[in-house]
Amino acid sequence: MSMRLVGVGVGPGDPELVTVKGAGALRAAAVVVVPVMEGGGTGRAEATVLHYVDQAKVVRVVFALNERSDAARREAAWDAAGARVAELLREHRSVAFATLGDPNVYSTFTYLAGTVTALLPGVRVESVPGITAMQDLAARAGTVLAEGTEPLTLVPVTAGTAVLKAALRGPGTVVAYKFGRLAGEVAGVLAETGRTQRAVWGSSLGLAEESVRPAAELGAEPLPYLSTLIAPARRAGRGEKL
Amino acid sequence: MSMRLVGVGVGPGDPELVTVKGAGALRAAAVVVVPVMEGGGTGRAEATVLHYVDQAKVVRVVFALNERSDAARREAAWDAAGARVAELLREHRSVAFATLGDPNVYSTFTYLAGTVTALLPGVRVESVPGITAMQDLAARAGTVLAEGTEPLTLVPVTAGTAVLKAALRGPGTVVAYKFGRLAGEVAGVLAETGRTQRAVWGSSLGLAEESVRPAAELGAEPLPYLSTLIAPARRAGRGEKL
Repeated sequence: MSMRLVGVGVGPGDPELVTVKGAGALRAAAVVVVPVMEGGGTGRAEATVLHYVDQAKVVRVVFALNERSDAARREAAWDAAGARVAELLREHRSVAFATLGDPNVYSTFTYLAGTVTALLPGVRVESVPGITAMQDLAARAGTVLAEGTEPLTLVPVTAGTAVLKAALRGPGTVVAYKFGRLAGEVAGVLAETGRTQRAVWGSSLGLAEESVRPAAELGAEPLPYLSTLIAPARRAGRGEKL
Repeated sequence: MSMRLVGVGVGPGDPELVTVKGAGALRAAAVVVVPVMEGGGTGRAEATVLHYVDQAKVVRVVFALNERSDAARREAAWDAAGARVAELLREHRSVAFATLGDPNVYSTFTYLAGTVTALLPGVRVESVPGITAMQDLAARAGTVLAEGTEPLTLVPVTAGTAVLKAALRGPGTVVAYKFGRLAGEVAGVLAETGRTQRAVWGSSLGLAEESVRPAAELGAEPLPYLSTLIAPARRAGRGEKL
């Protein structure tokens, strides 16, 4: 029996935003790996997974997704996590990896799949799409992400706001990811590009501590790491009636 | 009882890619509206919906999503469709509108919600996110959409390839939507920007006639309207081991 690693996108946190296919893949796997933060409790991916499978087949693996850890430590943690998942694949043959959002959009799964494939060249790697935070935020905020011929650009802000600023100067919708620590700077570039007014940000979507607010309220204080911001396209027309 | 219109993203065509929440919203609604093409048979959204609800509560509404129809005719069809949905809301109070992909990403739902809100100011409009074609194509092709600090840009190509070309000149992943008719031109800008080699395109994802192919095979012949193309970021690193 060949080895099979499936990256399952479990969405942003609301268990109901898992797809029927994703729920089936979690149930079909012998083991479901959930990424957890070093020293943390039940992670958000794990909480979602536990709506669909028994705790008994869930294995926590530390990915140290802590924004304060440096690149070298993070890489070492990823390598160790990859080795652990390879071990689980050798033993159980079929492993699902639950990832927040979508496994092909800014996901740890990309790195995991790379490491595991290097260790076990024969492994079959698959993925099941998941709802991303921007889609959930758009639905909850009543904001249209894109219509007509507008471009839509996603920018992670972990490495600074330069690319974000360039994107905001264009006409299309811009989505900023992972900007919690740089919330003050993001507020600055929104103001500078005239994009503050209709922008919204959200965090902990679908959870008890959910927050969905106008970007005008963004201050200098850091926000949760997994914050998402949507600056809607400069548009006029029927979509605006929403 | 207040009136409620819910846009439900049913994904790209594979019924299993509907979310648990989306399936629940389809089941909970008194009526499920599916957009169909003038003179066409069962549409793709309708086929997906019929996996979750009885034909008896499904209502076909013509949106004339035909790329050959001109803007004025299309707008008239949209207005008529909006009026029909408003009528259904008055009668049944709770209406779900099934849309391919996500209701906030290049979806007819944006226009429908605008029209319906103008006709029935008291209506509550909500949406449930759905998996987009680019996510499904990435999963099926084994292509990573974005990792690390890479930007990700979506560009509809209905209005020409200029914006697409500008995006392809950048470093990030670029996704082209609705380029079927302009497939030859898209192949040209991919070649010009050195992005042909790792790019993939797909159509009819999740259906019997599914096609997922390297972009190098794109010729001058038109492709299905709902074709999607992913030109992965210019990157080197662990993600590439995929």
